[in-house]
Amino acid sequence: MALVVQKYGGSSVSDAHSIKRVAKRIAEARRAGNDVVVVVSAMGDTTDELLDLAAQITPLPPQRELDILLTAGERISMSLLAMAINNLGVKAKSFTGQQAGLITDAVHGRARIVDVVPSRIRETVSKGQVAIVAGFQGVTTDTNDVTTLGRGGSDTTAVALAAGLGADVCEIYTDVDGVFTADPRIVPSARKIDRVTYEEMLELAASGAKVLALRSVEYARRYGVPVHVRSSFGNATGTLVVGTYGDRIDPNAPAGEEEAAMEAPIISGVAHDRSEAKITVVGVPDVPGMAARIFEVVAGAGANIDMIVQNVSVAATGLTDISFTLPQGDSPATMGALTAVQGELGFASLQLDDQIGKISLVGAGMKSHPGVSARLFGALRDAGINIEMISTSEIRISVVTRADSLDDAVRAVHTAFDLDSAEGEAVVYAGTGR
Amino acid sequence: MALVVQKYGGSSVSDAHSIKRVAKRIAEARRAGNDVVVVVSAMGDTTDELLDLAAQITPLPPQRELDILLTAGERISMSLLAMAINNLGVKAKSFTGQQAGLITDAVHGRARIVDVVPSRIRETVSKGQVAIVAGFQGVTTDTNDVTTLGRGGSDTTAVALAAGLGADVCEIYTDVDGVFTADPRIVPSARKIDRVTYEEMLELAASGAKVLALRSVEYARRYGVPVHVRSSFGNATGTLVVGTYGDRIDPNAPAGEEEAAMEAPIISGVAHDRSEAKITVVGVPDVPGMAARIFEVVAGAGANIDMIVQNVSVAATGLTDISFTLPQGDSPATMGALTAVQGELGFASLQLDDQIGKISLVGAGMKSHPGVSARLFGALRDAGINIEMISTSEIRISVVTRADSLDDAVRAVHTAFDLDSAEGEAVVYAGTGR
Repeated sequence: MALVVQKYGGSSVSDAHSIKRVAKRIAEARRAGNDVVVVVSAMGDTTDELLDLAAQITPLPPQRELDILLTAGERISMSLLAMAINNLGVKAKSFTGQQAGLITDAVHGRARIVDVVPSRIRETVSKGQVAIVAGFQGVTTDTNDVTTLGRGGSDTTAVALAAGLGADVCEIYTDVDGVFTADPRIVPSARKIDRVTYEEMLELAASGAKVLALRSVEYARRYGVPVHVRSSFGNATGTLVVGTYGDRIDPNAPAGEEEAAMEAPIISGVAHDRSEAKITVVGVPDVPGMAARIFEVVAGAGANIDMIVQNVSVAATGLTDISFTLPQGDSPATMGALTAVQGELGFASLQLDDQIGKISLVGAGMKSHPGVSARLFGALRDAGINIEMISTSEIRISVVTRADSLDDAVRAVHTAFDLDSAEGEAVVYAGTGR
Repeated sequence: MALVVQKYGGSSVSDAHSIKRVAKRIAEARRAGNDVVVVVSAMGDTTDELLDLAAQITPLPPQRELDILLTAGERISMSLLAMAINNLGVKAKSFTGQQAGLITDAVHGRARIVDVVPSRIRETVSKGQVAIVAGFQGVTTDTNDVTTLGRGGSDTTAVALAAGLGADVCEIYTDVDGVFTADPRIVPSARKIDRVTYEEMLELAASGAKVLALRSVEYARRYGVPVHVRSSFGNATGTLVVGTYGDRIDPNAPAGEEEAAMEAPIISGVAHDRSEAKITVVGVPDVPGMAARIFEVVAGAGANIDMIVQNVSVAATGLTDISFTLPQGDSPATMGALTAVQGELGFASLQLDDQIGKISLVGAGMKSHPGVSARLFGALRDAGINIEMISTSEIRISVVTRADSLDDAVRAVHTAFDLDSAEGEAVVYAGTGR
């Protein structure tokens, strides 16, 4: 008997038929004796349809009103799911973010959870009923206004509720079997990862793996919530995201079953990202405070920068180049903001390059294994791929290449680190909803 | 400068274009110096679409979940309307029933308002902003659950808010010019009624006039809220629903303007209703308590009965017949419940007749004018229409006829009481949304 939080994304509840299918799975979990709390996203394309309606009204809707509009989506999916579960003879009730006690700050559109007070959810579960909670949304305490959590919001709702309730596991249901060593659409021999640490999952999510939202992993790490990423189309074990490789997750599992992976593998997986652009500020006077000033301007333009590289300055000229990567969508505003200060800062020119790709190798084991970067760079050299930028963390190495050689890079690195499975199973790897 | 509550039904906000049109009208009212609170229904067919989704899931959804589902509709319309008003440069914020302080009992699907605590609405209006409130919905205090008010809910929300805020007027916008002396689809010469009392409007609404929900009129009468039923397609004055004919409504109007109608007209209008059926319990033993027992059974079947007629018993047999009318939808359950007690009660048989029509003549002036019923019956006789049942109140006479002679009856009575307008204007008369 465990307390389980299950999260279903929009693609799992896209129509009446799939809602009934999910309801059956939830009813089974309840009948197996578990206490079950479910977090659900809006049905399929509902969010896009609502955004389209708003766009017909005004190009710049107030964020507060946009949040109210978008939260209608979860209202529909959660009540329908509760109906479907009741129809199977298992009592279920649905709750808005406000009713579930998801308290956020007042930053509409990308609110942060500041507290979770799930007294009504506890009460519902203690009566043996299933509690369905609207994902992606919360409420401010001071104004009682509805907020949304932004991208990955429903994953974050699920993890936050699991933490607040002290759940045994937070199951993230998706349309793939778990987290993979690489995108199987690029690397057909990619394997499902059985177990990964929060740190590795953070690096994978930040490096382009879309199966789990970065924020939810941060939240899970902070509160030590065991996360189980698995498919809503079967009962197979997916990927466990845990604190250390020895963590036990399923209290119902026989003792020996989870002992196998005690020693961390060197490399967990290879992530890639095609959504970034690179801006180079050319001929920057190499004086103190210049980098600070440039990135003040970039931050003022609202850009979320990723990698930064500054070359050593050429002694003769006293000039240097600074390159950084950022989401492609942020590049027009950033280019504009930098152009406006060219006279003030005195740099020579700006270059924008949106034909880049980023490949990241992630693994907790690389800390204690020398030679990982040498092997990575060697694999890229052997495949004839040029390296444009490099950045590293303790458990990650990222390399920027040309966009059109990214697929080759991923395959070469995947093979070089012995990640290919014997079977070469072809599975579909895709992002979750919100 | 007045405090105005405006209510817009689903047909007034059926798409982005009509939402923008309504927003323009609201912005004008605000710019004219009024404090404006708006109550809005769900867009066009949204409610039906949500009900259809629920029907795909289960034939018998729990009422609590159905209420959550349906309230998604107002969430969409209210936020879009607030966006549209902001887009015109007038600040507007939308509020759910819960946020607006509409407290109800816990009877899901047809909750009753038990309190109105519109502190956030007051605060919004005091800042010069327009407050948009979701119609049709409220919240329970004890459980913080979402409820819906049932048929005519948005009209009731508007009147309740107007009462709670002490508004100068509650404007009900609809797709007709006001309340008419008869349905213009049947009587092309029907006239718009300029002014009608709560009592008359109650009788008209209860007798089949669909332009204003019965419950909202009851609420308006109890709290003395002046109601103005008018078209959302123009600026003409519609129908004022007031306590007495001398009541002043518009504080901005010149003094003399509303003095004309000081003496009540004899007859306000002719309503008709085609939605009822008649059940006759034949051969009922004429013993004390029999009627009470019959109507206990009928009430137990959930039927909302309207007229009741009991013939004098035939002395020789000691048997009588009892007939009553009820909504056609209630008749199957009622027939079933009565059939089940036939042995116990000892009546001879049951007759169900769903081919009836009801015509009602309403007017506060008929109290002090003798001969109204004689003139009514005479008009029906001259038109060759047979009278099957009669019931009266102080300000109403209702007559049941054959359904297929109802239109002729309405025209004959309308003419007999000099209600025909000289112009014979052809307008479309229709029901409001919720």
